[in-house]
Amino acid sequence: MLHIVILAGGKGERFWPKSTRTKPKQFQALLSERTMIQETFARIHPDVPAERIYVVAGPTLRDLILEQLPGLERENLIVEPEGRNTAPAIGLAAARIGRVDPGGTMAVLSSDHVVEPRGAFLATLHDAVEAARDATVVIFGIPPDRPATEFGYIEVDRRMERYDFEAFSVRRFREKPSQEQARSFLEDGGFLWNSGMFVFRIEALLGAMAAHMPGLHGGLMKIRDAVDTPDEAVILAEEYARFEKTSIDYGIMEKISDIICLKVTYAWDDVGSWGALTRHLPADERGNVRQGDTALIDSDRNVVVCDDGSLVSLVGISDTIVVKQGERVLVCRRDTDQSIKKLLQNMAERPALDRFL
Amino acid sequence: MLHIVILAGGKGERFWPKSTRTKPKQFQALLSERTMIQETFARIHPDVPAERIYVVAGPTLRDLILEQLPGLERENLIVEPEGRNTAPAIGLAAARIGRVDPGGTMAVLSSDHVVEPRGAFLATLHDAVEAARDATVVIFGIPPDRPATEFGYIEVDRRMERYDFEAFSVRRFREKPSQEQARSFLEDGGFLWNSGMFVFRIEALLGAMAAHMPGLHGGLMKIRDAVDTPDEAVILAEEYARFEKTSIDYGIMEKISDIICLKVTYAWDDVGSWGALTRHLPADERGNVRQGDTALIDSDRNVVVCDDGSLVSLVGISDTIVVKQGERVLVCRRDTDQSIKKLLQNMAERPALDRFL
Repeated sequence: MLHIVILAGGKGERFWPKSTRTKPKQFQALLSERTMIQETFARIHPDVPAERIYVVAGPTLRDLILEQLPGLERENLIVEPEGRNTAPAIGLAAARIGRVDPGGTMAVLSSDHVVEPRGAFLATLHDAVEAARDATVVIFGIPPDRPATEFGYIEVDRRMERYDFEAFSVRRFREKPSQEQARSFLEDGGFLWNSGMFVFRIEALLGAMAAHMPGLHGGLMKIRDAVDTPDEAVILAEEYARFEKTSIDYGIMEKISDIICLKVTYAWDDVGSWGALTRHLPADERGNVRQGDTALIDSDRNVVVCDDGSLVSLVGISDTIVVKQGERVLVCRRDTDQSIKKLLQNMAERPALDRFL
Repeated sequence: MLHIVILAGGKGERFWPKSTRTKPKQFQALLSERTMIQETFARIHPDVPAERIYVVAGPTLRDLILEQLPGLERENLIVEPEGRNTAPAIGLAAARIGRVDPGGTMAVLSSDHVVEPRGAFLATLHDAVEAARDATVVIFGIPPDRPATEFGYIEVDRRMERYDFEAFSVRRFREKPSQEQARSFLEDGGFLWNSGMFVFRIEALLGAMAAHMPGLHGGLMKIRDAVDTPDEAVILAEEYARFEKTSIDYGIMEKISDIICLKVTYAWDDVGSWGALTRHLPADERGNVRQGDTALIDSDRNVVVCDDGSLVSLVGISDTIVVKQGERVLVCRRDTDQSIKKLLQNMAERPALDRFL
């Protein structure tokens, strides 16, 4: 059986001030009327029934998830005691689901990515379940249409002829490249964007964890064995606190060789910054992307996002991101939107500004 | 007796969004804890007693004036039925005050200018009353300290030796100059900024109005004669509606020759734009002038004004004005702050945005 696990623990700092500590990006409607996590849920439901859709997140996001996803079954909300990166989060879900369906397959999806159209995604998911029979992990590679430097890449090997869909063995993972590298990747044609979503048989993943992250695996087994006992919560908290903060990419993916990469036919974007909105929203005749009430004079190529009931006005401004969200205003040059992190660090060091984070 | 008339009818559009139609610049605290009109009142009171201080403004500003100036006597609030520029407003005050003190002297002050120190201003006012015995109008000329293009200039003639303060006859008025002209004015030394404040004997001004604006003068006499009759309000409204919309500068000043210009010893600024704040508020080490909670990363020479309880943050932004006031945000390149007018016109044409004006 296929189980879907949606990772919803992301902090989404890059969309501050719309996203905040208490309401990260995945809970925001950035591109449609629905929030990113609602879009993610709707992408798979009801094709996958609710009893096999899970969400993993920390305790502070619990109420928000239940509010935004009324279709989610309460017991399928897997609460991590604290954020310790993706390897523990995915391991926890695998242990939980493996307890009731050890022979099952699991797909791990991000809660805040753009994926469309839905039909192509579901078809690829179907193919991935098939390929997962033959490998430890199946990953989704996105054909790049530009030399992006903000994504990791998958260098693929020869196409695997045994499938009637495009599947490749993986040569290696490449971290976010320089502009020059990215251009050569694009030219080469043998590089795909790593979308960070993947499919595996639960027993295969837990086996890989036992081999490459034995500490994590041992803890997960204790947690699994304590489910439905009086010590469940205590053991979960104790073991989880000991897990190394490691990503699944670093902890597992880069250490195993039997990975299959599917070349997907859908469009994907992690929408990792305010600037990325320009790839998904229509621009006016001067290249400005606008949401909400705005008034622009002599202004070009801006991203202007304004919350309900407010007005953002620009005079003589170009290539700038301006966001008004409640009592918070961000004005950021478009080519420096990665520095929002630096801004939030600066704010975190100033107690008077803590409430704006 | 000296009577003070504070003109409070200005729209103050250039400080949108802090100033709005319902609360123009003179009612805003831009540079101190007190609003500009409160500073103006405090500059003359109690040296001039409250019974001889008047404020002229339209009916919509009445409550705001009484609220901000508790020291103002209610009957000294002169309400123009509608704004028709300065000649009718000053004429109305002159007619009203002249009815009870026809031999009196009147000083017309702006409600939204910076003037300091107070002592030097009061001394100049005293000198002006003396000089007003010998001329139709006495004006205040400010020695320029830079080639400003946003002010009108007074080209003065020889110094008048009969006074022990610096008084000059006026050669002519010069409109806002080009940058080049302004530089030559500054070098020449014979040009002073026109601060738009002046002093006159009431009968001298009404005489000049009779000669150069007979329609206005006739109407004012009817209005004066109707005071304390049952028809007072009707006649005021009827006559006022007929007055030409003319400034006192155009209607009177430029048509008479017996004007004395005092060279003042105080500092003056009309603070005509957001950028002008940099002349009055301290800047941080990167040249940013800030009010309220702000967080700046890699940003230089900005003017950032944020209302209470809010945060404005800048990343990689330079030479820009950013103002957050309630639900309104303005982001404006510093060298185009005169285009705010264009912005407000654009907004006025869009019914959905009318409420933000």
